[in-house]
Amino acid sequence: MKTEVRLSGSGGQGMILAGIILAEAAGVYDGKNVVQTQSYGVEARGGASRAEVIISDEEIVFPEITRPDILLAMNQASVDKFLDSLKEEGVLILDSTQVKNLPVLKSRFYQVPITELAHKAGGGIVANIVALGALIGLTGVASERSLREAVLARVPKGTEELNRRALNLGLDGAKEILGK
Amino acid sequence: MKTEVRLSGSGGQGMILAGIILAEAAGVYDGKNVVQTQSYGVEARGGASRAEVIISDEEIVFPEITRPDILLAMNQASVDKFLDSLKEEGVLILDSTQVKNLPVLKSRFYQVPITELAHKAGGGIVANIVALGALIGLTGVASERSLREAVLARVPKGTEELNRRALNLGLDGAKEILGK
Repeated sequence: MKTEVRLSGSGGQGMILAGIILAEAAGVYDGKNVVQTQSYGVEARGGASRAEVIISDEEIVFPEITRPDILLAMNQASVDKFLDSLKEEGVLILDSTQVKNLPVLKSRFYQVPITELAHKAGGGIVANIVALGALIGLTGVASERSLREAVLARVPKGTEELNRRALNLGLDGAKEILGK
Repeated sequence: MKTEVRLSGSGGQGMILAGIILAEAAGVYDGKNVVQTQSYGVEARGGASRAEVIISDEEIVFPEITRPDILLAMNQASVDKFLDSLKEEGVLILDSTQVKNLPVLKSRFYQVPITELAHKAGGGIVANIVALGALIGLTGVASERSLREAVLARVPKGTEELNRRALNLGLDGAKEILGK
């Protein structure tokens, strides 16, 4: 069982921190094998930066993602750039506050108002944490409990309550979509 | 021209943040192609965690490090675990405050009192930034100017001065070793 996740957004949307938190939730707290990667350079430019996480029950031999199982797209450039890379049966999660030109429907395709929920939590800066809550709630790729531990271990001191609200709003958004 | 760097230490020594800062110095500010990776799981346990950075003028096709050109070892477990992986002509940089059992001499082998310098800067928490200063000063794998920008862009607000001191002590430590 192996799941490849690509987190994409603009430079300021905190996708690298999101990647590290997801990796630590699955790797440190859930005890899976995880490789977390970010790339910089020519191909990384153009309004869509990304962080990648491979989560596996087995040892990870080839640590590069070619076609993700899960794509989080936090802005339009990310949808435009990375949608084609998603596996046929993959899951697309997009920030419906930011992405206005919706792609052709994929088999599993979720719209979550991530930025709007972040402002409700207390500020756009926690959009990445809302996104992680939504992603875990929708896909179960790490446990909710591990995600909580990983978030609180990584966010700056003094911002725990803000981040807890953001995480809960993301998780609740997922539950609403799934009708739980 | 391609350089592979492995940053290793205990869980609390901030090697992941150091990896991201080094990657952004070389990738965002120096404009190189960079892939930055961390692994979690069975092979990542046992007192030595690691972050890895590949810096290249060309596109990076295979993003996994097998034998680093540069190994930073911030504790004894890291030396014991990763020294064998270093290339024959590779550079070893170790924290001489932490590592007491010195390995058999490699061709280029630097001892820097990283933790001691961090306490001089204002606290052990900036040992990772001292280490980056020493590593860049000794190897030139990113420019000093880019490293300064990358550090200030990533460290928590309000800690800029502490981190600037740490960086300067690391750079100065390197210059002293090289007799500059």
